[in-house]
Amino acid sequence: MSLKNDLLLRAARGEKTERTPVWLMRQAGRILPEYRAIRQKLKSFKELVTNPELAAEVTIQPVDRLGVDAAIIFSDILVIPEAMGLPYQVIESKGPVFRKTIRNLKDVDYLKIADPVNDLQYVIEAIKITKKELKGKVPLIGFAGAPWTVFAYMIEGQGSKTFAKARKMLYTNPGLSHILLQKITASTINYLNAQINAGADIVQLFDSWAGILPPGQYREFSLKYISQICDEVPPSSLLPASFGLPPAVSLWRAGRQAGIPRPPMIVFAKGAWFARSELVSLNCEVIGLDWNMDIKESRAVISDAKTLQGNLDPCVLYSSFDEIRLQTKKMLKEFGPFRHIANLGHGVYPDTEVEKVKCFVDTVKEHIA
Amino acid sequence: MSLKNDLLLRAARGEKTERTPVWLMRQAGRILPEYRAIRQKLKSFKELVTNPELAAEVTIQPVDRLGVDAAIIFSDILVIPEAMGLPYQVIESKGPVFRKTIRNLKDVDYLKIADPVNDLQYVIEAIKITKKELKGKVPLIGFAGAPWTVFAYMIEGQGSKTFAKARKMLYTNPGLSHILLQKITASTINYLNAQINAGADIVQLFDSWAGILPPGQYREFSLKYISQICDEVPPSSLLPASFGLPPAVSLWRAGRQAGIPRPPMIVFAKGAWFARSELVSLNCEVIGLDWNMDIKESRAVISDAKTLQGNLDPCVLYSSFDEIRLQTKKMLKEFGPFRHIANLGHGVYPDTEVEKVKCFVDTVKEHIA
Repeated sequence: MSLKNDLLLRAARGEKTERTPVWLMRQAGRILPEYRAIRQKLKSFKELVTNPELAAEVTIQPVDRLGVDAAIIFSDILVIPEAMGLPYQVIESKGPVFRKTIRNLKDVDYLKIADPVNDLQYVIEAIKITKKELKGKVPLIGFAGAPWTVFAYMIEGQGSKTFAKARKMLYTNPGLSHILLQKITASTINYLNAQINAGADIVQLFDSWAGILPPGQYREFSLKYISQICDEVPPSSLLPASFGLPPAVSLWRAGRQAGIPRPPMIVFAKGAWFARSELVSLNCEVIGLDWNMDIKESRAVISDAKTLQGNLDPCVLYSSFDEIRLQTKKMLKEFGPFRHIANLGHGVYPDTEVEKVKCFVDTVKEHIA
Repeated sequence: MSLKNDLLLRAARGEKTERTPVWLMRQAGRILPEYRAIRQKLKSFKELVTNPELAAEVTIQPVDRLGVDAAIIFSDILVIPEAMGLPYQVIESKGPVFRKTIRNLKDVDYLKIADPVNDLQYVIEAIKITKKELKGKVPLIGFAGAPWTVFAYMIEGQGSKTFAKARKMLYTNPGLSHILLQKITASTINYLNAQINAGADIVQLFDSWAGILPPGQYREFSLKYISQICDEVPPSSLLPASFGLPPAVSLWRAGRQAGIPRPPMIVFAKGAWFARSELVSLNCEVIGLDWNMDIKESRAVISDAKTLQGNLDPCVLYSSFDEIRLQTKKMLKEFGPFRHIANLGHGVYPDTEVEKVKCFVDTVKEHIA
C-alpha cells in the first residue's frame, strides 16, 4: 500500500520535502489518557507489549491525537534478551528487572539467537495489525535497542546511573563481551528484518546508554555492532517470507547493487557526542541528536551526508505555549529546512501535557522555512 | 605550616613538578575497610558527616593507606541546602532525600544564606582537626557543589536520571530559579571562604549534573554562578577571622592586585563537554575531565591556560593489575608531564578493591615522563 504521507521517509533519504516531518520518541504511552485507560485494565506493562491488538491500538493513538507524521510500534528494547532466553519484568516506578543476569560464558552459551517468527511473534503481529489499521496514513517505525544498550541491561539486570557492572565486564572479560554482543547483534538483525518483512517502513536503533562509555570502548563494543546491523537491513522485497537464522549473504548489499531502496535507518546514540564524526561512516540514513548537542556544530561534524533527527529538550514542553513555539521555531531555523526530522532530544517525559505536545507538533507543521 | 608535599598545589598553578600528583574523588569512603568499620558503628551517613573528629579520621585514612598526594575533607555537597534551611537524609541504597522541596517563591524566601560559622561549624571544625593531624604531609582539598547541582537536588528532592522537575523549573520559573541559584551561590562563597580560613589549601566545585542541561541553559543557570564563585575565592591571608555575609569587596581581586596567591580552584563539570571552551574564561586554575572526554581534544579546546584533572574511567580499576598499569600509563602519556593532576573521571566506585586503587596511585607515582 502506498503511503499518503511519506514526508518522514523522504526526509530520511535526503530528499527535499514541503515541510519538516515530526514525531516524538515515546509518543505512544503514558502521556495519552487513552493509553492510560488501556494500561489500567491490565496487570502489567508486559501484558500490553505482548498483546498484538492492544499494542497496535496504542501505537495508532498518537497519530490521530497528536497529528504526527509517523507511528512507532509500541514495544520495548528488552524483548530481545527475553527472546534470547533472559526474561525480564517491568516494575512500576523502578523499571525493568531481570531475575537472572549474565555472569559467565556458560550463561552466554545458554542464550540462543532470537528467532523472531517464533520468539517475537507478538511484535511481528502487532506490526501487521498496525500497518493494516493505519491504512497508509503515515509510515510505521520499527525499532530495536543497539547491542551495547541491550548488553548493559543483560549484565546489570536493571537500570543504573553508572552501569558499573556492565562496564566492568568490558574490562574484565572482553572476550565474553564480544561473544554476547555478537549474539545480540545477530538476534537484532533477524528482528529488524522480521519487522521490515511485516511492514515497518523505517527502523531506529536506540543506543540509550551510549554516553557512558569512553570513546575507545564505544568504538570497540558499540559502534562495531551498530555498523554490522546497518549493513544488514535489507529492502523488504528481497526478504524471504520467513526466517530463522540471518541470511547468508547481505541482502542490503544485494539490494543496493540491484538499485532497490531499503527502509531507511535511524541511529540514536544518546550522549555519544564524542562519536558523531564516526557515525557518518555507518550505512544509516539518519542520526539522532540529544538536547546537549549543538545543532550547527553537529551538522558541521556529521556533514550533509546524513539527515539529522531531534533535538528539542523534552523539558521545553513544560513551558508556556508561547515558549514552546519560540523554542521549536528556533530549533527549526538552526536545522534548516532539509535533512531534518523534528523530534525531541529524548523520549517525551510521562507527565507532559498532551496539549503542549500538540503545540510542538503543530508548530513544526505550520513552519514555513 | 608549610607542606612537605605540595605537588598538587604547584601542578594546579601550572608550575613544573617532579612528577604528576594523584588523588581520587571519593577516596575517603566505602572502598576502605577502616572507613566501613567506623561507619558500621554509626546509625547514619549524616552522623559521620556531622562529627568533626570522625570526619577528620576518615579524611586522613586514604593518605596513609593509598599514598595519595592530597586529602579531601569527608563531607557532602548537600550540607549547603541544609544550612540554608532545607534538611536532607541519606537513605542507604537510595541516596539523599529531602523531606521538603522548593516549589515556589515563598519556599525560596524562607531559605537563608548559609552562615558557615553557625550552620556548618562541624565541617569547619573537621577541616581544622584534619589540618592539625595531617601535620603538613599533603594539602587538604575543600569542596562544595556547584549551584546548579545543589539547586537540582533542592527542587527534585532526591537523585534522578533526568532531573526533570529541576529542569522544568528553569523553563517554567526562570525568575525563581535565578533567585534560588543566587542564594546558593552566596552561601557557597561563604562556605568556601570559611573552609579556606580553616585551612583548606585548594578547593573543588563539583557540578555533578552539568551534563543534563542544553548548552544555552548551562551558560545561563550554571556557568554564571560558578563564575561568581571563582571570582570570590580569596587568599586566606585576606580573610577576616570569622564571617557572616559575603565580603562587600572581592578579596580575590584585592589579593590578585596585591600579588598574594590564593588557594587554587578546581571546577569539575561532569558531562559538560559542550562547555569546555567556556570553562577557560573562569577564574579557576584546574578543570576536571570525565572519562568521555578525549584528552588531546580537551587540551586543544581548553588550551594550556589551565591544569587538567582526571580522567581514567573508574571501571578500569576493575581490571587486572597489568591492565590498570597499562591504561594509567596511556593516560599519563596523553596528558603529558605538566599541567596535569591524575585522578579518575568520576568518583571511585564503592566496590573497587583497595589494592587496585593503590596500583593506580603507584603507577602514577612511579611514572617518569
